[in-house]
Amino acid sequence: MLDYGGEPVIVTTDLLVEGIHFDLMYHPLKHLGYKAVIVNLSDICAMNAIPKHITVSIAISNRFSVEAVDELYEGIRIACEAYEVDLVGGDTTSSPRGLTISVTAVGSIAADRITYRSGAKAGDILCVTGDLGAAYLGLQILEREKQVFLAAPDMQPQLTEKKYLVGRQLKPEARLEAVRYFEKSGLLPTAMIDISDGLASDLMHICKASGVGAFIEEAQVPIHDEARMQAIEFQMDPITCALSGGEDYELLFTVDPKDLEKIRFMDSVYIIGEMVPKEDGITLHTSGGQIHPVTAQGWKHF
Amino acid sequence: MLDYGGEPVIVTTDLLVEGIHFDLMYHPLKHLGYKAVIVNLSDICAMNAIPKHITVSIAISNRFSVEAVDELYEGIRIACEAYEVDLVGGDTTSSPRGLTISVTAVGSIAADRITYRSGAKAGDILCVTGDLGAAYLGLQILEREKQVFLAAPDMQPQLTEKKYLVGRQLKPEARLEAVRYFEKSGLLPTAMIDISDGLASDLMHICKASGVGAFIEEAQVPIHDEARMQAIEFQMDPITCALSGGEDYELLFTVDPKDLEKIRFMDSVYIIGEMVPKEDGITLHTSGGQIHPVTAQGWKHF
Repeated sequence: MLDYGGEPVIVTTDLLVEGIHFDLMYHPLKHLGYKAVIVNLSDICAMNAIPKHITVSIAISNRFSVEAVDELYEGIRIACEAYEVDLVGGDTTSSPRGLTISVTAVGSIAADRITYRSGAKAGDILCVTGDLGAAYLGLQILEREKQVFLAAPDMQPQLTEKKYLVGRQLKPEARLEAVRYFEKSGLLPTAMIDISDGLASDLMHICKASGVGAFIEEAQVPIHDEARMQAIEFQMDPITCALSGGEDYELLFTVDPKDLEKIRFMDSVYIIGEMVPKEDGITLHTSGGQIHPVTAQGWKHF
Repeated sequence: MLDYGGEPVIVTTDLLVEGIHFDLMYHPLKHLGYKAVIVNLSDICAMNAIPKHITVSIAISNRFSVEAVDELYEGIRIACEAYEVDLVGGDTTSSPRGLTISVTAVGSIAADRITYRSGAKAGDILCVTGDLGAAYLGLQILEREKQVFLAAPDMQPQLTEKKYLVGRQLKPEARLEAVRYFEKSGLLPTAMIDISDGLASDLMHICKASGVGAFIEEAQVPIHDEARMQAIEFQMDPITCALSGGEDYELLFTVDPKDLEKIRFMDSVYIIGEMVPKEDGITLHTSGGQIHPVTAQGWKHF
């Protein structure tokens, strides 16, 4: 939080590197430009702030055409329009190989409404703004189709029936409407983070910063039907995908129980658990009635 | 300039890519970290603003050791301390190959003191805060030593007697003291830019944005003795190095003639020319009494 005399200024920055954060075999440049902006706007939203400006720097090798660069900027422009954010700086430079995108987002919020990871208390309700695991499963589908394509380049990828999952991976959204609802309803989350690493890992960040534990009710974790079916097709456990799969960019937040009514009026929100004293740890209450410790990788079978 | 209710917020961002913007054969990591910060602070200073915060994102391949990353951050830390700037965010991520550094700087200044490239008027005095061409010549020396080393790895580079030039390349400074002097003395430059591309090119930016022309007095352009001698050793024209060599990060600015007295009291400043009507173009008045048009590459012999 930066003090420039007016509203506190929030700055976030993110560097996306080809071969690490994206694969151009299945991340179209327009979507990539869009996503590069969204992940930063999501970071601003996670502090309960409103994103207002971005800068974008791109390093790109000469294997990309002018049209390719235009596609990338088109995605950036669409994201800026959708979220009413102004692109105010940055540049395009050359790179010996590969593509790197650096986005910085700037936003602000009234000082008494900034939300950190550190404010959760035992007894607070744990909420998430949307379904989890889909972006991870979308990535697995894209990765599988890539391998099929590499083995047999004539095969056409079969992605149309996986549209929801692939869309969650390629075109995530920032939950600005949740931040707007919080403001309108006078609801102040006690702690908040956006789910980029996975529910388990990001919940651990809140617990660590707040000095509390938490439990998650497996049955309450929102998982889209397509995600559930796809997980089973991949012989994976749907809850593991929700806990460990990242890049959903939903907001994970805690609220004081007195604000429960305000949560009920939110458009898209799921109550998935509760914060507990630190010594109780972070656990998953399974649908089968068992209790498992949650780890950064997901959860531990005994 | 971003409006967040208080002082205007200025944001600049820069992406440095290995193999394009630096060569690790002669840019030590500590200096590189320092320089990555400085080029952004210089951008903030060029708007007559005071840099206050930076974020740094680094993408680095596994060929770099933990100690190497520490060296890089040490340089960043030293720059932050020297310029009283806080590092408030960013992260380190992996890269499939090479090193990329993205720095964003945030600063502010009273709204009525922001200086753009666009305010110069015919009759304004053209000034620069320090000598030019040295960083470029330093780079040529480093490049020569690299070639010598590649041809005969046992040879030790002979850099000690070229300390000034090499230092100007490896450890540039941002002219924050000039911005502070402007504020203290109540002097408001009519236009300003920092010299990253070279005097000719950056002067053209001011002229284009302001809709004016300019002349430079060759005899008044500050060139360090070592730079002059090195240029001659390389069989280059010293004034060409000053006009075309970039990365000096001196501030190039214009002032109304009524402020001439205030300029005289500045610690380090050189009056090198004057702004003229647009139709008079941008010219170099040589020490020999000739007039040559200035081009982005330097200047044109007839």
